[in-house]
Amino acid sequence: MKKFETEKLEKIIKSRFLLNQTAQIYGGVSGLYDIGPVLFGIKQNFTSEWRKHFVYYDKLYEVESSILLPYSVLKASGHVDKFCDILICDKNNGLSYRADHYIEAFLSKLPHSDEISQEIKMVDCMNCKDIDKIIQKYNIKTPDGNEFSPSIKFNLMFETNLGYKEGHSVFLRPETAQGQFLNFKKLYEFNNKKLPFGSATIGKAFRNEISPRSGLIRTREFEQAEIEYFVNPKEKTFKKFKTVNTLVLLLCFDNQEVKMSLEDAVNNKIINNEILGYFMGRTYLFLANIGIDSTLIRFRQHKKDEMAHYAKDCWDCEIYSSFGWVECVGIADRSAYDLTCHSQASGTELCFSEKCIPPVIKEELKPIIDKKSWIKILKKDYEQFSNELNSLSSKFIQDNMFKENDKFYINFVFNENSYKIECSQIRTTIHEQKDIPDVIEPSFGIGRILYILLEHSFYLRECGRPVLQLKPKIASTKVIISYVVQNAVFTSYINNILDQLYDYNIVAEVNERSCSIGKKYASCDEIGIPYFVTFDNDSLVDKKVTIRERDSMEQVRLNISDVSGIICNLINEKISWEELKFNNLKF
Amino acid sequence: MKKFETEKLEKIIKSRFLLNQTAQIYGGVSGLYDIGPVLFGIKQNFTSEWRKHFVYYDKLYEVESSILLPYSVLKASGHVDKFCDILICDKNNGLSYRADHYIEAFLSKLPHSDEISQEIKMVDCMNCKDIDKIIQKYNIKTPDGNEFSPSIKFNLMFETNLGYKEGHSVFLRPETAQGQFLNFKKLYEFNNKKLPFGSATIGKAFRNEISPRSGLIRTREFEQAEIEYFVNPKEKTFKKFKTVNTLVLLLCFDNQEVKMSLEDAVNNKIINNEILGYFMGRTYLFLANIGIDSTLIRFRQHKKDEMAHYAKDCWDCEIYSSFGWVECVGIADRSAYDLTCHSQASGTELCFSEKCIPPVIKEELKPIIDKKSWIKILKKDYEQFSNELNSLSSKFIQDNMFKENDKFYINFVFNENSYKIECSQIRTTIHEQKDIPDVIEPSFGIGRILYILLEHSFYLRECGRPVLQLKPKIASTKVIISYVVQNAVFTSYINNILDQLYDYNIVAEVNERSCSIGKKYASCDEIGIPYFVTFDNDSLVDKKVTIRERDSMEQVRLNISDVSGIICNLINEKISWEELKFNNLKF
Repeated sequence: MKKFETEKLEKIIKSRFLLNQTAQIYGGVSGLYDIGPVLFGIKQNFTSEWRKHFVYYDKLYEVESSILLPYSVLKASGHVDKFCDILICDKNNGLSYRADHYIEAFLSKLPHSDEISQEIKMVDCMNCKDIDKIIQKYNIKTPDGNEFSPSIKFNLMFETNLGYKEGHSVFLRPETAQGQFLNFKKLYEFNNKKLPFGSATIGKAFRNEISPRSGLIRTREFEQAEIEYFVNPKEKTFKKFKTVNTLVLLLCFDNQEVKMSLEDAVNNKIINNEILGYFMGRTYLFLANIGIDSTLIRFRQHKKDEMAHYAKDCWDCEIYSSFGWVECVGIADRSAYDLTCHSQASGTELCFSEKCIPPVIKEELKPIIDKKSWIKILKKDYEQFSNELNSLSSKFIQDNMFKENDKFYINFVFNENSYKIECSQIRTTIHEQKDIPDVIEPSFGIGRILYILLEHSFYLRECGRPVLQLKPKIASTKVIISYVVQNAVFTSYINNILDQLYDYNIVAEVNERSCSIGKKYASCDEIGIPYFVTFDNDSLVDKKVTIRERDSMEQVRLNISDVSGIICNLINEKISWEELKFNNLKF
Repeated sequence: MKKFETEKLEKIIKSRFLLNQTAQIYGGVSGLYDIGPVLFGIKQNFTSEWRKHFVYYDKLYEVESSILLPYSVLKASGHVDKFCDILICDKNNGLSYRADHYIEAFLSKLPHSDEISQEIKMVDCMNCKDIDKIIQKYNIKTPDGNEFSPSIKFNLMFETNLGYKEGHSVFLRPETAQGQFLNFKKLYEFNNKKLPFGSATIGKAFRNEISPRSGLIRTREFEQAEIEYFVNPKEKTFKKFKTVNTLVLLLCFDNQEVKMSLEDAVNNKIINNEILGYFMGRTYLFLANIGIDSTLIRFRQHKKDEMAHYAKDCWDCEIYSSFGWVECVGIADRSAYDLTCHSQASGTELCFSEKCIPPVIKEELKPIIDKKSWIKILKKDYEQFSNELNSLSSKFIQDNMFKENDKFYINFVFNENSYKIECSQIRTTIHEQKDIPDVIEPSFGIGRILYILLEHSFYLRECGRPVLQLKPKIASTKVIISYVVQNAVFTSYINNILDQLYDYNIVAEVNERSCSIGKKYASCDEIGIPYFVTFDNDSLVDKKVTIRERDSMEQVRLNISDVSGIICNLINEKISWEELKFNNLKF
């Protein structure tokens, strides 16, 4: 597997302010990071590419929902009851640890056995009782050699209070998905009441991790990009699947790792349906497109006991990094679970309607009364009697019907009297049917992908100098303009180039430091700036400048008047560096 | 003043899902809104323009800092103690009201008098005692006719707890500014230890408003775009000021409203300095550029009693709306206040250094001792004695010095003994001086500006049909492609245009609904889509289509092959509709 220069990369992350721990001058807060200008630029370009690749390409509806969500929403979604970690605390000093992590690490150090391997596999799914039992069984102690007090469930949501009065509990959203479910009805109307369609949100989510670690891999405040694709549960074939079906991905399922085309995986029922397969393919293409090493991407299927009970299928897109394989994107068929929960809890119908073509004709036995004769019997009570009778459910009628002389009856109780009513075959024509859509959810952890992108892009030249080999469209600053010797004539040329690049929305900087050109190159290479333009003494004569490319370190001489146009084409991948070199040789 | 069609606009905001109250299906949460696809697109274009106009243009360093901030940071910034509203509660039913709003509304309804006008003006600055007094004086009752209990201070920050243990208080940031101050040192190093430079952040901030109202004007979760421009307090002239100095703005100060050029305002000391003036000018240009009616923009100077005690000058950019004049941007010279607070509280130096050219020679009287003879006296204590003596501040020496026989002495107490030590003139050469930078802060409320932009853009045609006259670069979807009659031949043309527009990052949609073309136009006009392309039966013959412009409702016939290029130029303001019409007539 690939070797990562983590230590050297971390040094640059710190020295060039890619990241800084939040409130670092106050000692920092664990699990919280501030993003500096270089990484912010990279993140901006990442989200632009994501938006283009997913939102524009699949005509998704991007929405921005509130970070603060009321109790009722997260009670219905299951987060209030189930979004928990198990915590174990030192009886003596009160220090707390995340149970699964602690026990897994402890067991891994024991002499290997099948039993212990089995226990390690199960730690993830243990409840408090299981945890306490296993602590007792292996006599697990705290790092200070103390006993643990009984384990406790700890909800991972941040809670706060809305307005002045106590008891108006709100939470910081644990995922952006809920905001999209809450707006389903509005989105469905916006899409002219048609399925399928998708929504998307890029935004912050929060989890009160017990012991955050691993830099951007596990933070308390993090950025997600989530898609909710709403589909008819009966229609999971997908026209666009054919645009990705020949892609061969590394799939992990049933304890095997296999290279397989998406088409084969769907046909063999390994991947549940085409829409899920489509988003797996699109995710792979996206990651490769932004510069993730595509040989270090795999898709791992959730095991039955790992998957949420309502999910029909779930795949984690994992990327290999210095932390091993890291889950970066989850792609799940969540069935109609979320919309059903919110529909029930809020009392709002969250359905789609489907025209029945041809209309469905349904024959049912129903209690039928002759109005005139029953009015005579019931008088003013007739109306209520009739209403109650008509509102009996099909199931109730089915369960209570009895047969006498080839006719069907039910006994219907009204105002403490029982009436025997005949049921007749009734034929109804159904033109429209309602159902709750299924949801396919690709969910991206942006911080993780960005950090691993840095790892995949980072390497040392033979001379030992570090390079961040980002794609030009992902790099923060695209070009540096500099000069060997300062000359007033250059200023107007440089300003002209800067103005043109500004017009194209390309971020350029002038380097006016008086250090050597070699130092300037090195300083740009380590933060991934792809191009460097230098004015030298010859520039005054031949009206040309040198452009240097970061990865090859090759240089090409260009007309000053062509610089901005060529840089624009390089960044937008309209020409490659090889083509530029080739064309230049021709002149 | 302009008349706003607020009611009709609100109807479209709701029916076309520009906004939805958060968790609306659960009854909604006051002060929280979700943004739907159309307004999200507008907001995206808004932030792109902001980034280009401010971040790229002025080479600002954009950073993204955490929303969660620890207690220590907000204690130092003054928010824990001072970021409060005063609350008054009904003694009987506990209902709470924001004191300033309630009392102001009450007093405004009383018969007019100078005294009452004076009280109204003061309500903003009243403390709890003042509030209680005025309630008593005017016998102010609750809306239910009950007494108020004594007023209380209510902090507007949302508080939550970090990690498992109680007492690790963190707050949701009340402004994005603090994250920039906290990273000042890193940013200063990133800028090669030079001033001036600026940082910027676009992101969410939170205020637990007691009674949120007025839609996007006052919400509990809102988006800010803030710039912190760090400058040498002694250098507030600014080269780029000359790019805006001739702008004539409507300025409100000293109870007058005057049209004045920025140059005159700075020269006459109405605006404190050129940097402040520069950002006022840039703000005005930005707002006009995105489509705010520039005749409805004014800049109001904070009065002495309204301004934070540390601020050197502060101007609110107000825009006129259906709510009256609304503060949308605050532009303040905050002096060195914020960095000084964080430097003191964190113990980290947040300074810039300045080379002294020529070096400054400083002569001072300092207590000087002869090492050899004092070692004899103090023995092993000499080291400590010498250290303590040298660490005396200049001020202490100045204050405690006395003269005897033309010589200067101080009495220095060490280990309970007092020593009389002679002071001599010492000359030191200072090559570098340290100081804390001043901060100029333009702070934009994005939600407010967006809402008012909708108001300024919205109007009814003579026929009564609503139009959202957004600039093409601000509109969410840029173009709709449709056809009069469906024809398979069109599909490949349409897909081709869509592919090209996708390549240019231009959001286009196909309208396949079977309603009349008039209805389609109306549906696009009300959400601001500027262009509409129609394939008709002639298209098959002449390979041309019709493009219709939203505001003029004029149509031009174009070659199908030119459509995507021309739309791209229209959106990017490379050609105007007038020019397109003119050029087209020539062919």
